[in-house]
Amino acid sequence: MVQSAGTRFARFSALSLPFVFAFGHLYLSARSTPTLAKTQLSPVDHSHEIRAVLTEQQAAWNRGDIPAFLQGYWNSPDLTFAGSDGIVRGYDGLLERYRKTYPDKARMGELEFAGLEIRPLGADSALVVGHWHLKRTVGDAGGVFSLVFHRFPVGWRIIHDHTSAQKLTP
Amino acid sequence: MVQSAGTRFARFSALSLPFVFAFGHLYLSARSTPTLAKTQLSPVDHSHEIRAVLTEQQAAWNRGDIPAFLQGYWNSPDLTFAGSDGIVRGYDGLLERYRKTYPDKARMGELEFAGLEIRPLGADSALVVGHWHLKRTVGDAGGVFSLVFHRFPVGWRIIHDHTSAQKLTP
Repeated sequence: MVQSAGTRFARFSALSLPFVFAFGHLYLSARSTPTLAKTQLSPVDHSHEIRAVLTEQQAAWNRGDIPAFLQGYWNSPDLTFAGSDGIVRGYDGLLERYRKTYPDKARMGELEFAGLEIRPLGADSALVVGHWHLKRTVGDAGGVFSLVFHRFPVGWRIIHDHTSAQKLTP
Repeated sequence: MVQSAGTRFARFSALSLPFVFAFGHLYLSARSTPTLAKTQLSPVDHSHEIRAVLTEQQAAWNRGDIPAFLQGYWNSPDLTFAGSDGIVRGYDGLLERYRKTYPDKARMGELEFAGLEIRPLGADSALVVGHWHLKRTVGDAGGVFSLVFHRFPVGWRIIHDHTSAQKLTP
């Protein structure tokens, strides 16, 4: 994110300084402009990259490899995971939560995602909403999730996860 | 994104300088300012506007006015609400859900938000994570929520809500 923004700015700063001074009010105008940018430029489609992260996560889960599954998340203390236990913070906290909730392969089961909807939020962020299902010998589980992805130099990573277990219908 | 940044610069540099000096600010305001804002200046802080939407929602809820509470949401069939019931779609669907789940003031109770964290996602989107609590005569309720806000010409609106009820600790 910082890198790509830096690249963009480097291009901009190649413009002459008088020019920049003449239009120094640009910052103030930033508030009203995105609508125009949206209508004139079609956004770059990153959905295949995001889907690839989720596919990797699914494969890691299904071979019982939680640390590899976690690699889809932002490795930061600012990573957040919301759910019925409240808010879990940080990569290490989330790793611990997964290890505690899914101590063995029987608890992990076979993970499937369904109905993925990927919505861009600006150039470097996206919202992914979908259903998760665990097929397990100890009883299936499932529900819905909302993931906020951010694009880093290393690729797209989940910066926030809100996951719910769905009520079972009788 | 790198591609689109390049496109923006290419288009810009094709303009003749006199034209740019005379009228360029209109064009530049539309195209280049989010980048500048991101790299050179701290991003525009919209958190007060987002907080204002939530404060309005809280006030509407606490006077028992669900339609006014709903005004914090994007009035669109593409609005989504995720939770333990799965995914509810559209403004009308969400209105119906709220009316069904909270049929009277006793069920609605007094709403409080706590621990709000507002994270910008580009220039026009933001993630808000926080805790909700309903103080009620029929039994309190509470949990965490994740809201994705988008900035529209009319202001910031929730385009996706994922809300969980928190497990009560014994």
